[in-house]
Amino acid sequence: MSETGGIPGAMSGTLYGVGLGPGDPDLITRRAARLIEGANVVAWPGLAGGDSLARAIAADLIPADAREIRMDVPMTTDRAPAQAAYDAGAAAITAALEGGEDVVCLCEGDPFFYGSFMYLHARLRHRFRIEIVPGVTSLTACAARVPMPLAARNEVLTILPGPLPDDALRKHLRAADTLVLMKVGRHLPRLRRLVAEAGLTDRAHYVERATLGAERVLPLSRAPEIAPYFSMILIAKGADPWL
Amino acid sequence: MSETGGIPGAMSGTLYGVGLGPGDPDLITRRAARLIEGANVVAWPGLAGGDSLARAIAADLIPADAREIRMDVPMTTDRAPAQAAYDAGAAAITAALEGGEDVVCLCEGDPFFYGSFMYLHARLRHRFRIEIVPGVTSLTACAARVPMPLAARNEVLTILPGPLPDDALRKHLRAADTLVLMKVGRHLPRLRRLVAEAGLTDRAHYVERATLGAERVLPLSRAPEIAPYFSMILIAKGADPWL
Repeated sequence: MSETGGIPGAMSGTLYGVGLGPGDPDLITRRAARLIEGANVVAWPGLAGGDSLARAIAADLIPADAREIRMDVPMTTDRAPAQAAYDAGAAAITAALEGGEDVVCLCEGDPFFYGSFMYLHARLRHRFRIEIVPGVTSLTACAARVPMPLAARNEVLTILPGPLPDDALRKHLRAADTLVLMKVGRHLPRLRRLVAEAGLTDRAHYVERATLGAERVLPLSRAPEIAPYFSMILIAKGADPWL
Repeated sequence: MSETGGIPGAMSGTLYGVGLGPGDPDLITRRAARLIEGANVVAWPGLAGGDSLARAIAADLIPADAREIRMDVPMTTDRAPAQAAYDAGAAAITAALEGGEDVVCLCEGDPFFYGSFMYLHARLRHRFRIEIVPGVTSLTACAARVPMPLAARNEVLTILPGPLPDDALRKHLRAADTLVLMKVGRHLPRLRRLVAEAGLTDRAHYVERATLGAERVLPLSRAPEIAPYFSMILIAKGADPWL
């Protein structure tokens, strides 16, 4: 229905926020693939001075002659440098859109599920037509790889970022039927302790880099000491309630 | 890594639980599309005596000469008739797998996100090789259509089935940063009251049949009196925290 609040200029291009799925290029949707293959301008975030997972997932689809807008996002706890990177990215994207070009912005997973596209969306949504193309999230990709059904019937599913303080995590670990801890990374030892405290270790699975090649799927009790940023803990309290 | 707990017979076929996304056939992943196009046996659930949304989404991809296994699932509050339908479906799928054929089972959305495939998975996982192909969920499809970013940074996202009792809903409406009420349907008047009670009406969006053609996206305050089963309420408490 309505993609934007206002009426964007008819001469301006459209910004596409395109979800690429969790990593395996085969999990890109047909719509996302077609948009990328037809793109003249492609934008993507990368780790400052490092690689871009988003670009790597879509690499085979990007036309050789497409112009690319790179956003170098530093991974710091201070938010200002990252926000400056999105300001610069939004300015480059604005120039392309105002010139009448469409811009396809590549997003790991889904643009609106813990994704950085929302920073661009907040900056540009009042000025341009934006279409969000949803993608497969790491949430269901990890569940597929365990394999562990996430939720059925009237079960409550809660997604918790690992960096949250202990008390918040404790409260939610009690309340939901299925729990997914995202952004585990360096928080793994602390999260493992909180899950044990809640008596849920036997029901907890650890998944690292789902569908990304060097994937690992283990019971949480056998998870490594050091976890990468792209790791997740999945906990289902129900005891096979699906029969 | 490991798709199943045991070692399935080498002669048996593989069961694919294939997520089709929320409704628009363009949101099918490339892997799902390829599996369906190459299928000899396709299984799918349908409303007893009615249509199958899963089959409709995939219709253009199903080979003309594929054999189809239909599971007629009655929508009753008593679980026994639906479970009998999955028993019968599992038996037909077992016969095909034991005959060495692969079976592609079509699933709306994602197989493990409030999906009926988990009933087949529970029945067949110890006997056969099963691969889950994750799909785009209605969760992120609805968020894309509002458009409303679901969660960022350290925000907690909770998914609540609408049929839950008032007290459970009240508790979760307080606790999370972003809330998604699924399976709204006939519970809409009650859910609207609970959202108002929590002071969240101004932040609540109503989405009906996302990406399905007759889609509707409205502020909750302007939602219709009668909602279809495939409707959702999305609530973000954060006030544009993405700048």
